[in-house]
Amino acid sequence: MKNTYFTPGPAELYPTFSQHLQTAMDEQIGSISHRSQRFRDIYKFADEQLRTLLSIPSTHGIFFTGSASEVWERVLLNCVEHESFHLVNGSFSQKFYDYANALHKHAHVLEKPFGEGFDAADVEIPAYAELVCLTHNETSSGVQMRTSEMHKLKRKYPKKLFCIDTVSSAPYPDLDFSLIDSAFFSVQKAFGMPAGLGVWIASQNCLVKAERLEKNESLTIGAHHTLPTLWKHYKTFETPATPNVLYIYILGKIAEDFNRIGIDTMRKQTEEKARMLYKFLETSDTLSPFVSQERHRSQTVIVATTGTPDKPKASADVIAAAKSINMIVGSGYGKFKDSQIRIANFPAVSIEQVASLIDELKK
Amino acid sequence: MKNTYFTPGPAELYPTFSQHLQTAMDEQIGSISHRSQRFRDIYKFADEQLRTLLSIPSTHGIFFTGSASEVWERVLLNCVEHESFHLVNGSFSQKFYDYANALHKHAHVLEKPFGEGFDAADVEIPAYAELVCLTHNETSSGVQMRTSEMHKLKRKYPKKLFCIDTVSSAPYPDLDFSLIDSAFFSVQKAFGMPAGLGVWIASQNCLVKAERLEKNESLTIGAHHTLPTLWKHYKTFETPATPNVLYIYILGKIAEDFNRIGIDTMRKQTEEKARMLYKFLETSDTLSPFVSQERHRSQTVIVATTGTPDKPKASADVIAAAKSINMIVGSGYGKFKDSQIRIANFPAVSIEQVASLIDELKK
Repeated sequence: MKNTYFTPGPAELYPTFSQHLQTAMDEQIGSISHRSQRFRDIYKFADEQLRTLLSIPSTHGIFFTGSASEVWERVLLNCVEHESFHLVNGSFSQKFYDYANALHKHAHVLEKPFGEGFDAADVEIPAYAELVCLTHNETSSGVQMRTSEMHKLKRKYPKKLFCIDTVSSAPYPDLDFSLIDSAFFSVQKAFGMPAGLGVWIASQNCLVKAERLEKNESLTIGAHHTLPTLWKHYKTFETPATPNVLYIYILGKIAEDFNRIGIDTMRKQTEEKARMLYKFLETSDTLSPFVSQERHRSQTVIVATTGTPDKPKASADVIAAAKSINMIVGSGYGKFKDSQIRIANFPAVSIEQVASLIDELKK
Repeated sequence: MKNTYFTPGPAELYPTFSQHLQTAMDEQIGSISHRSQRFRDIYKFADEQLRTLLSIPSTHGIFFTGSASEVWERVLLNCVEHESFHLVNGSFSQKFYDYANALHKHAHVLEKPFGEGFDAADVEIPAYAELVCLTHNETSSGVQMRTSEMHKLKRKYPKKLFCIDTVSSAPYPDLDFSLIDSAFFSVQKAFGMPAGLGVWIASQNCLVKAERLEKNESLTIGAHHTLPTLWKHYKTFETPATPNVLYIYILGKIAEDFNRIGIDTMRKQTEEKARMLYKFLETSDTLSPFVSQERHRSQTVIVATTGTPDKPKASADVIAAAKSINMIVGSGYGKFKDSQIRIANFPAVSIEQVASLIDELKK
């Protein structure tokens, strides 16, 4: 019997994935040239579907990388001359910040403890920070930053470039791209695909910055997947290097499936499933929501503490219980591996599957 | 009817690809965690199979990236403090050199015209060059550099790190990794897979260099996929970021298929098919081998000039003739698009298919 993966990525494949894969195999998409009209049509289609799904305006380009982690590096190289600013409250926002340091950027940071979230009112951005790096959904702790807070912050600092990590939440966050300059995600989370493709959305403002930095001989914007090169090829729906053609094809098809359902409906379904999960956790004797502030609770990666202060329970027991009905939930991240579980609430799992998981965990 | 792709990559999928893909789907490889034992087993298996196939000693690690183009950047960032040296005789060796310049390395170059090849005797390497960047198979022009010449050159300059681009030839080149410090390829060429995975082989000497450069505050070795991070995770068969798990699984399986045939047999089959193609070109009235020196003729990407000086023939006509029997050959690269064709001779196409192509082109 097949498992249902409630893991926060790689995750359950979207139900239509295998049929799109079969079509791609039948049409030999794995062999076509990335310099052919057939590929340009595939890129254009994925671009159109993502643009509709996420309301991306024509001021922004959509680019493909090997992973979202690669984008951390690319956006820092291409959009930061000296200083970046990071909100850090978990392992992945920390890694974005670590990348800035590894690239010898002057990286400013505002930190909060694991499990806590940010609101616009908490944040003062240093005067010379060029790029503001925010994480919509901290996959390690299950904390989200609401998009309304991100927009508020950008309105307060309109001259700074804002880049949002939406790796484990897109297409859920309703970002306003008239305010947000860049965002990125990977396909093995809410898009229900295997890992191996990153998607980078970036504005003309980012491009202008990258073009200026490229002329600066005292730094490098990198050589591979630089924004000017990506954008130049993007004009004809090509890529500088051979991309993951097969996954770009499938991503376009899954985005089309999402658009058929409609992004509003998809977001409501996500919220409904999250509501069910959090309601269960709040009434459970053995599990409790890790994130205390309701407004900071992720809608896509739900983190629960296993056991109670009096009666701690190993996460392995909870994971094993779910496994007995072929449902795979994730363990806690890092040092919380044994005391937390993480339940991904992506579009690939239905309300009925979430209900079954809750029933099992209730036992 | 399905096409047979003789294109130099993306190319024909290896005959066993679809069955490995099916097994992977049945086993839900697309959903498993990259921090699970199942993934570590997959990485270990691919590592073992590639190690056997390419005779890679334990001094070298095997790492996965998004593409081979990414490795151009990674090896330059991680192994060059100031100076690199490049042999350039076509568009892809040129790109390796361009990457070095984009990274503000002091890049030395020895150039030859498109269609000409290098021997060890041609080459004098500048005293301060740290990394010698060679291209085994120049995909754009169909020129190869023989591995014996590479080994000769390394013996002459034993203290320099040697890195070989084997993108469109691996596993054909019999590199001696007791001499060669690094090599890389992508899977959409001779391994007969869709694009989306790069493989980087690098020695402990490369690692030592990268670790030294990492401590140097006046430069950066990058943030993503740095050699020290890749190696650290490699020790337990993990990766720093979520990799293309599905393709790593399939690559291991295809490498195992190759090992069942045996690398010697596979190399002989490649040479036999190349011999057939070159023999045909030499006796054809309308096609001729583009590379004049036999020892520089690629065994894996055969480039032919279409027509004769008196009677030039558009490559499109030749491509259309092959297409009429569902065989897809590549056009010439760049400015040779209309006057050359490129025929990939990868393991995915059989001797019988090569014979059929030749029969059709003879008409």
